[in-house]
Formats: sequence, C-alpha cells, structure tokens
Amino acid sequence: MKPAAVAEIRVEREGALALVTLSNPARLNAMTRGMWLQLRAAFEALNADAQLRCVLIRGEGGAFCAGGDISEYPGFRFEEAQLAHFHENEVWGALQAVLDCPVPVVAQIEGACMGAGLEISSCCDIRLAGSACRFGAPIAKLGFPMAPREAALVRAAIGDVLARDMLFCAGVHSAQRLYDAGFVLRVLPDGDVAGEALASAQRILELAPLAARANKRSFATLQAAHVPPELLAGAYAYANVAEHREGVAAFLEKRKPDF
Amino acid sequence: MKPAAVAEIRVEREGALALVTLSNPARLNAMTRGMWLQLRAAFEALNADAQLRCVLIRGEGGAFCAGGDISEYPGFRFEEAQLAHFHENEVWGALQAVLDCPVPVVAQIEGACMGAGLEISSCCDIRLAGSACRFGAPIAKLGFPMAPREAALVRAAIGDVLARDMLFCAGVHSAQRLYDAGFVLRVLPDGDVAGEALASAQRILELAPLAARANKRSFATLQAAHVPPELLAGAYAYANVAEHREGVAAFLEKRKPDF
Amino acid sequence: MKPAAVAEIRVEREGALALVTLSNPARLNAMTRGMWLQLRAAFEALNADAQLRCVLIRGEGGAFCAGGDISEYPGFRFEEAQLAHFHENEVWGALQAVLDCPVPVVAQIEGACMGAGLEISSCCDIRLAGSACRFGAPIAKLGFPMAPREAALVRAAIGDVLARDMLFCAGVHSAQRLYDAGFVLRVLPDGDVAGEALASAQRILELAPLAARANKRSFATLQAAHVPPELLAGAYAYANVAEHREGVAAFLEKRKPDF
Repeated sequence: MKPAAVAEIRVEREGALALVTLSNPARLNAMTRGMWLQLRAAFEALNADAQLRCVLIRGEGGAFCAGGDISEYPGFRFEEAQLAHFHENEVWGALQAVLDCPVPVVAQIEGACMGAGLEISSCCDIRLAGSACRFGAPIAKLGFPMAPREAALVRAAIGDVLARDMLFCAGVHSAQRLYDAGFVLRVLPDGDVAGEALASAQRILELAPLAARANKRSFATLQAAHVPPELLAGAYAYANVAEHREGVAAFLEKRKPDF
Repeated sequence: MKPAAVAEIRVEREGALALVTLSNPARLNAMTRGMWLQLRAAFEALNADAQLRCVLIRGEGGAFCAGGDISEYPGFRFEEAQLAHFHENEVWGALQAVLDCPVPVVAQIEGACMGAGLEISSCCDIRLAGSACRFGAPIAKLGFPMAPREAALVRAAIGDVLARDMLFCAGVHSAQRLYDAGFVLRVLPDGDVAGEALASAQRILELAPLAARANKRSFATLQAAHVPPELLAGAYAYANVAEHREGVAAFLEKRKPDF
Repeated sequence: MKPAAVAEIRVEREGALALVTLSNPARLNAMTRGMWLQLRAAFEALNADAQLRCVLIRGEGGAFCAGGDISEYPGFRFEEAQLAHFHENEVWGALQAVLDCPVPVVAQIEGACMGAGLEISSCCDIRLAGSACRFGAPIAKLGFPMAPREAALVRAAIGDVLARDMLFCAGVHSAQRLYDAGFVLRVLPDGDVAGEALASAQRILELAPLAARANKRSFATLQAAHVPPELLAGAYAYANVAEHREGVAAFLEKRKPDF
C-alpha cells in the first residue's frame, strides 16, 4: 500500500544556516492547517537560537507553495469564529514568526508562489525567483477576501497596483513582473535558483552576524504595517455568506463559480 | 448657431457596472468646478448602491483628462478662502468620493492624464493606459503648488521620485515610465485601451462581489495618507502672491511666465 | 613638499542656485567627520536664505561619495557614547539639514555612491546618475549595522528589497537597478550627468519659487519616517563588540574579515 502523502514543514541545520522546507508535494506544497502550526513552531525555535545566522526557505520538488490546501476549507471556513481563528492565529501566528526571525531569511522561489506562498515569501528578506515562476492570490474566484493583516503584508511587499490586480481581477503574474514591482531581488534561470539562494545564504554567513541582527530589527520595525482595529472588526463576518460557500464548492467540484 | 460645449460628468449603467465619463471635449476633458461637483455627486450616488460591482472611469473622445479648466482660475484662485474652498471641498470632496467607492474602479487612461486627471486616476484600483499617454502636473508653470492632500495622494500612487520631478521640474512622462513607477498596471496599444478596460471590468463582475468590497475596505484604509494638520495650516496663503497671478496670466495670454 | 589632501565641503553661489561640492578627492570624496559638520553648516546657512531657489550637490572629480572615511573609525567607533554622537549628531545633523532644505535639491551622481553617498543622495529631490555609477552600503563587511534613522531614510528612498540586499548581502548595484527601484530619476551617459544636472537646476530656477517651497514642505512632511524610540534605545551598544573591531581592522589591514 502506498503511504499517505505527508504534509509537513521540515527543518535542517547546516551550522549557522537553517533550511526550512515547505512540503506537501501532492499539492505543490499547499499549506495545510497543520503546516501553518509547524511553520510557526519551526520559526519560534529558530528565533530563540543565538547561533543562527541565516534561514533559507524553499518548497519541495520545484514549487515554492501553491496556496492554502483548499480541500480542508469546507471543514472550518463557513463558521465565523473558526475562520477568524484560522486567519488570526494559525496563519498570522506563522507569518509573524517568520517576520520575527532575527536573522536574514532567503526565499528560494520556484514554480508556484500563490496565496499562502506569496504571504510567506512577503516575510522574507532576500527573494530569488525562477523565470517561470507564477505569482498571484486568485481567492476572488474562491469567494473570499484576503484577511486584513495579510493584505497589508502583501500590499507592502508587492506594491499597491499588483496587489489590487491580484485581488480584484485574480491576476497572475510572472517573476519579471514581480521584479519590476520591487518584490523579487533577482530573476534567475529556473535551474539556478536553488544554487543562487544557497550562495546568498553563504554570503550572509560570512558577513557580520550582530550587524545583521541589528539591521533586521530596523527593517522589521519599519516594515510593520499598522492595521487599524476597525479593519479587523467584522473581518470574518463573511464566513457563512453564499458567495464564500459557492466559491469553495465550485473549486472543489472543478466548475466555474456563479457569483 | 453652434451649441455651447458641454462640460459634464456622465454616468451610464450596464447592470452591475457603472461607466463614468469625464466630458469637456473642447478642452481634453479638463475639469471645471461644475464637473468636480458632478463627479462627487455621481460617486456619492454610486457608493450607496448595493447592487454595484464595478465602476469604469474614462474620458470623452480619446483623452482622459488634461487637468483643471484654467480659464476659470482668475475667477477664484487669487482669494485665499475661495482657493481653500476649491481645493479642500470641491476637488478633495470629489477625490474622496472616488476613494470611498466600495467596489473596484477601473481607469481607462487615453491621451492626456495631467493634473486633475492624474489625481482622479490615483483614486482608481486598476489603471490601464495607452502607450501614447502623457502624465504630469506642470503647475509650477502656473505659479502654484499642489494642495497637500492632493500631493500626498499622487505621491503615494506614482512614487516619490516622479512626483518630485513633476512638481519641481514640470516633468511630463510616458505611460511606460508610469508603468515602471508602479502606477500603470498595463501599457497597451492606444486602440486597445477601451476594450481591455471593459474586459477588466467584466472580469471583476464575474468574481465574488462581497470579497471585492472587503478587499476594497482594506486597501482604502491602507492607502489613506495621513496629512498632518500643520501642513494644511496656511496651505492657501499663496492665493494672492505675484507668482500665482503671473503663472495663470501667462498661461491664458499664451506667453512664458516670468517668475 | 606636497600639501596635505583637503577634505571639505565647498559652496559656490550662482544667483539663486547654490552648488555644493563634496570634496575629499584622495578618497573618492569619502565623508570625514569634519565634512559632516561642514555639510550641516553649509545647508543651515542655505536653508535660511530666502533668495535661494535650488541647490545642486555633486562630488569632486567624477565621483559622488564613496562612503565614510574609514581611516577615522578606530578613533571613535568603539566607544558607545562617541559612536552614538557620531551617528545621531554629526551624521544625522547633516542629513537632516539637507532634508530640511526648503528648495529643490538636485543630486549629480557620478561614479561611486556608497554608504554616506547613498544617504546624502537619499535626501535629494532630483537624482541623475551616470550609467557606470555603483550604489551600495557594504558595511556588513565592516562589522556594523546602518544606524536606525539612516536605515529608515535609505529604505524609504531605494525600496525595501534593495536596502535589505545592500545591508544583508553587501550587494552593490548599478544605476539602472536604482532606476528600476525608483531612486534614480534618469540614467545618463556618464559624461552627460553634470550638464543635465545643471540643466535640471536651471529648469527649476525658471519655475515658480514659492510654489516649489510649498511643495517641498509637503514632500518633506510625507517623507519623514517615523523611527520608534525603542529602535534607538541601545542602537549603539555594539560599539565595542569583537565583530565591529574586526570588520574595521580587516578593512584597514586590507584583509578579509573573520566574523
């Protein structure tokens, strides 16, 4: 019998470098709820480690992350309290842990970088992407908005214009477009991304570690988006509306949604 | 006898889509005071309409908007209270109504997009522009600054560098330059802009409408620029200074101003 | 006997235009402590001059500014109070004076624009650069972080992505890359930079001067980055750590640092 596909976050350590791998290969590393919890735990452990000098995040098997694992959505998205808990605690808890990382984080972006993948990479410092990568967050097709904190994070990282296109028109964009937008530091041939990401990490390992931690504090403070409390009030009241149910159902039934 | 040219804002409705047209064809759709009032009224009505899903803004006859209607300026700009009322109530009232639109607004930008046109398009979500478009705000030639709220709006939309060039050097820029600056989403052959803008609107109509409204709230909140009160104090004290009168007079007399 | 190389800020006046020259030609105009004090004094005098309409900043002999003068660093960087005084008073005092300039400031950027040069040019309104220019702030090699206010200034001007690459990876970038990042207004053939910078200044001189001052107030207010006090607390506690001493020593001994 074939073993069940494993969805997990793996952490490997090579001296002062930690390699974090998003792994759900059956679904292009789409994030399950369990993976969000593991991502948070992984970074909380790394963040407490004074010997750490650099983290490299990548996806298993040539994709970074295709989004959330939509097959789980019917189980919790249509009840407001569960939905709020998912976004504010599970997702944001993990993203905040990545943002809180006190050392530089390199993102090795290959293949799909959608939704959750876009959010995770928005928390990184150095983003290298393969020329065939695709970026987007087409959740308007799924009948729901981006949570306010996540929208603030992504908008600050990719710029207002692309963020609006991704959310209002379900636009999907190339690595070159994300370079133009000031999100991707370098676009590389797809086969070179892993090697160049590791070279960037090794470059960081050679440079002054306390200086990097001090700079990281400055950037983290300057990056922190203020999300007014009024934006969060009622942010998940849409849990049970028809368009939300329709969008998720249509996706799972492989048909076009009717909004 | 030929009828007087009409300067107006027209609103047409096609189901959940509203088409708003800036129309002052004798002056490349330059905004008159009456048009600012109509633009505000048009959006205040649209903003209250729960059935609305998308707005498309365009200009009459192949131009978006060439600026303000300078022929009206001698009638009110040289008295501080009137000038402040114009910028803070008439102009900003209209721009705020566009910013407050709870559904995505697509800008179909053709030909001239100057001054008032740049400000109106800065309030939109999706901006498509023809490759021959020209963007700028050369009011330094007219002897006056951009009002603080308008400067904050435009700077956030086009970026600090271009905004300074437009205001300090009266620089005029191409659609490609505005794409590079992260303002224009897509540069298109001029003849394709209307069709592609409509296609973007139709795309939005097919996607989840409440999700779009929720995302719009997030973006509007994150976009809202804080303009410190001290910047507004005395902002219109220049009403009666010589350079202001000289700039407007020189334009109307078709000569170079002497500052 | 050959005279000692002079390190100084020179100010020349041509009517309403001031020409400010960074001059330390033996070190590609690297800023000495004395030059920071002179830069502040020069701008404080210019800023009080109601007849001034434009300032042009440039470097002596085909370079803008290669950074700080590292030969001075062993004399003051390893004691916290002296280090804090240097960054918060000497460096920031000068940068704030440039930021406070009430008229447009044109940067004529040729050759090296590193560290201090990047910071000074980040305070300017119009930035023209030669195609061979190099931009960076590779102080991670020197074992120290960018001071928080300076990091906030540079990050806002060059964008988050490039700022992180410069500080975390010691990345050095081209003028075209800085154009892509929205920092450089125009990239020019190296031989044309001086002429075009002067032409921009002359363009500004012809335009309305009070309007420019009003616009400058708006931009300065909108540009002012909020640096939270907690970021400044302890910002210079690294003065005496080993990596700081090692980085500076290695540079002066022309060897690779061992962090």
